[in-house]
Amino acid sequence: YVLYVLAVMLPPMVLALPSNSGHFLQNRLSCVFLLIHVPCFFPSLQTTSSALKGAIQLGITHTVGSLSQKPERDVLLQDFEVVESIFFPSEGSNLTPAHHYGDFRFKTYAPIAFRYFREMFGIRPDDYMYSLCNEDLIELSNSGASGSLFYLSSDDEFIIKTVQHKEAEFLQKLLPGYFMNLNQNKRTLLPKFYGLYCVQAAGKNIRIVVMNNLLPSAVRMHLKYDLKGSTYKRRASPKERDKAVPTYKDLDFMQDMQEGLLMEGDKYSAVCKTLHRDCLLLQSFKIMDYSLLVGVHNLDQACREQASEEAVAGAADQRRPLGQKSLYSTAIEAIQAETGSMGSEDTGDKTGGIPARNSKGERLLVYIGIIDILQSYRFVKRLEHSWKALVHDGDTVSVHRPGFYAERFEKFMCNVVFRKIPCKYRDKGV
Amino acid sequence: YVLYVLAVMLPPMVLALPSNSGHFLQNRLSCVFLLIHVPCFFPSLQTTSSALKGAIQLGITHTVGSLSQKPERDVLLQDFEVVESIFFPSEGSNLTPAHHYGDFRFKTYAPIAFRYFREMFGIRPDDYMYSLCNEDLIELSNSGASGSLFYLSSDDEFIIKTVQHKEAEFLQKLLPGYFMNLNQNKRTLLPKFYGLYCVQAAGKNIRIVVMNNLLPSAVRMHLKYDLKGSTYKRRASPKERDKAVPTYKDLDFMQDMQEGLLMEGDKYSAVCKTLHRDCLLLQSFKIMDYSLLVGVHNLDQACREQASEEAVAGAADQRRPLGQKSLYSTAIEAIQAETGSMGSEDTGDKTGGIPARNSKGERLLVYIGIIDILQSYRFVKRLEHSWKALVHDGDTVSVHRPGFYAERFEKFMCNVVFRKIPCKYRDKGV
Repeated sequence: YVLYVLAVMLPPMVLALPSNSGHFLQNRLSCVFLLIHVPCFFPSLQTTSSALKGAIQLGITHTVGSLSQKPERDVLLQDFEVVESIFFPSEGSNLTPAHHYGDFRFKTYAPIAFRYFREMFGIRPDDYMYSLCNEDLIELSNSGASGSLFYLSSDDEFIIKTVQHKEAEFLQKLLPGYFMNLNQNKRTLLPKFYGLYCVQAAGKNIRIVVMNNLLPSAVRMHLKYDLKGSTYKRRASPKERDKAVPTYKDLDFMQDMQEGLLMEGDKYSAVCKTLHRDCLLLQSFKIMDYSLLVGVHNLDQACREQASEEAVAGAADQRRPLGQKSLYSTAIEAIQAETGSMGSEDTGDKTGGIPARNSKGERLLVYIGIIDILQSYRFVKRLEHSWKALVHDGDTVSVHRPGFYAERFEKFMCNVVFRKIPCKYRDKGV
Repeated sequence: YVLYVLAVMLPPMVLALPSNSGHFLQNRLSCVFLLIHVPCFFPSLQTTSSALKGAIQLGITHTVGSLSQKPERDVLLQDFEVVESIFFPSEGSNLTPAHHYGDFRFKTYAPIAFRYFREMFGIRPDDYMYSLCNEDLIELSNSGASGSLFYLSSDDEFIIKTVQHKEAEFLQKLLPGYFMNLNQNKRTLLPKFYGLYCVQAAGKNIRIVVMNNLLPSAVRMHLKYDLKGSTYKRRASPKERDKAVPTYKDLDFMQDMQEGLLMEGDKYSAVCKTLHRDCLLLQSFKIMDYSLLVGVHNLDQACREQASEEAVAGAADQRRPLGQKSLYSTAIEAIQAETGSMGSEDTGDKTGGIPARNSKGERLLVYIGIIDILQSYRFVKRLEHSWKALVHDGDTVSVHRPGFYAERFEKFMCNVVFRKIPCKYRDKGV
């Protein structure tokens, strides 16, 4: 109720905002509405709040801006441990604009190191800031048991994910090795980490990581899988199956896609080689329990649907006009970086999907990436589960020692999920 | 005396050596002679011993060979901490040849990481092994107070230096940051570390580091300086001055070279920029007390000397025929790596010297590199000295906090030692 009062008192304060925050004015009414319903700032991680989004945008705008004023220099080992912190009082300060999200503190982890990473990934500071901060962030429906919130930048390039304290800590520890990998290995299916931040308000810390978006919104995913190479309890729940596009799991894949996703020899080799190097790195960090996210767009099915479904195609497909190319990170680049080829010739695809076929010979675009690499610490928590799984079946445990996990993961992906296209499809002129 | 007996018993054992160790046979007599005089294996670090050289060569041959059988893979963070160890019994084993240096153990630090570094520096495994192990290592006269032994490979490319336990430990700690620097910064005057090893025998550990050779033997250095940017006690000792080519220090430079070493604008900028980045890195590791080694070859003086001194030119100049280019690391490459220019047009120099002039307008080639970066731990030992120096003159202390040290070092090099060539020399057609 205190906040409500603040909110209705906003108009005079809002006038003090810089001109580029005009959209705050437009949203003021809905914001008042929100504040009534969310009387406390970020009462829990579960609460989606436009205040969080607003704080993130103010924070990133500030940190990227102040970073661009620092001269370019080499990243040093110590840069991985730096945490920069700035206070955003709602009434504004000489460094920060006034705002109506309540006082908060914004922390930027390893700013110089992440600036280097963004540069390596070809992201200009202005573009990064513009993509994340210039339009509203889109909240995605929570996928999975992690309890994380997901936001998508309106241009579809970036995912913002809330992470737990331990995950953020782990990412920071990972940075030197991540740096090394990036310098040796342009081809990688690992998550691309663009930034790690923390919004601190009302005694709560909300840590967020900015990553690449694996599944372009403009491309309808006909199938989605979260694969680990394990079979224990690896079936989508009935609740998940009720969704429009459920995220299926290993057992579902084995049942529904018995012939796997068929790729040309060069693509198949590139995927497997990339997975191998990535798994080696994950293993070296004792990371387990990661998944391969697989999105499948069926080009032939899409053609059939187009006529009948045009009305249903919906908002998501309008976010980026089909054919507009993905700016930064695509699956095809991840496996064949040096070729720099942005599209496949036979499909004319510019969204970076990897061309493949299903067993019917239908043309597919496959979007893949390794996800959930920061959650190894859960290993301890899940010991009980692990034990049950161990009893259930010795080598189908999802949580196992890293070398075993990596090997099984790799084997599953390269033997079961992805396969070299057999001659019978070749002859059809694939 | 026990070893003497072993030595005279050698002939039958020697026959068991592989064929490429033929030079051992040739050296057998001198080796027996040595063993008589050095009854105990490496009795102290001060003892120059061909046994140490032989052990180093056996060890490096083995470690490089066994490494080349391992598949190429990315360097991981853990690789910096690996130490591989192999025992070389004098009677030989199924992994190691028989030899007459007494039993020893050879340790290779961070083999995969150094393999990566050598690759980055353009050194092929075979060439590395050949340069270091195929001919006798040349012992250099001990330069400086460090008590280190120095060996030069017969092709003049590599320096082997014995380092203390703490220095080796420090280098290992430095490796991740060294990796980062190398990936961001091809231009660097820092030492190039090619390998870190330890020979363990008779209860002694002798740690050695393989580095680039800054001063090509084929080039007569008319002047040599070890510069720190300090003035406190920075004058060559009378004993040093008695040498054929003494290593002078800061005060000597300021007195004898009041106008400094004059360089064209682009060379001058490149040197200063490179020094700046290097100093930043050294500072970040809290490293102090390093020096810039400067070798000056006076082309005009060399011309004058050539006729009168041909007989005196001596063995050193014959090591590599003048004009044979330095294979790996040169000063000119260190400051302008990306141009890839190996020689200066006006001098026709292939040894990688940086063209410069002295105040008389004579043409010089300058060879530079930062040395002694592993000895920071001495800081503690030298506190007393430091305190005296502090009392003597607050800002001319050689040992000071790293930021101060770096700044003073950089300032001295870029204001006093190297200077942009003034117009008066320009007009002479430099």
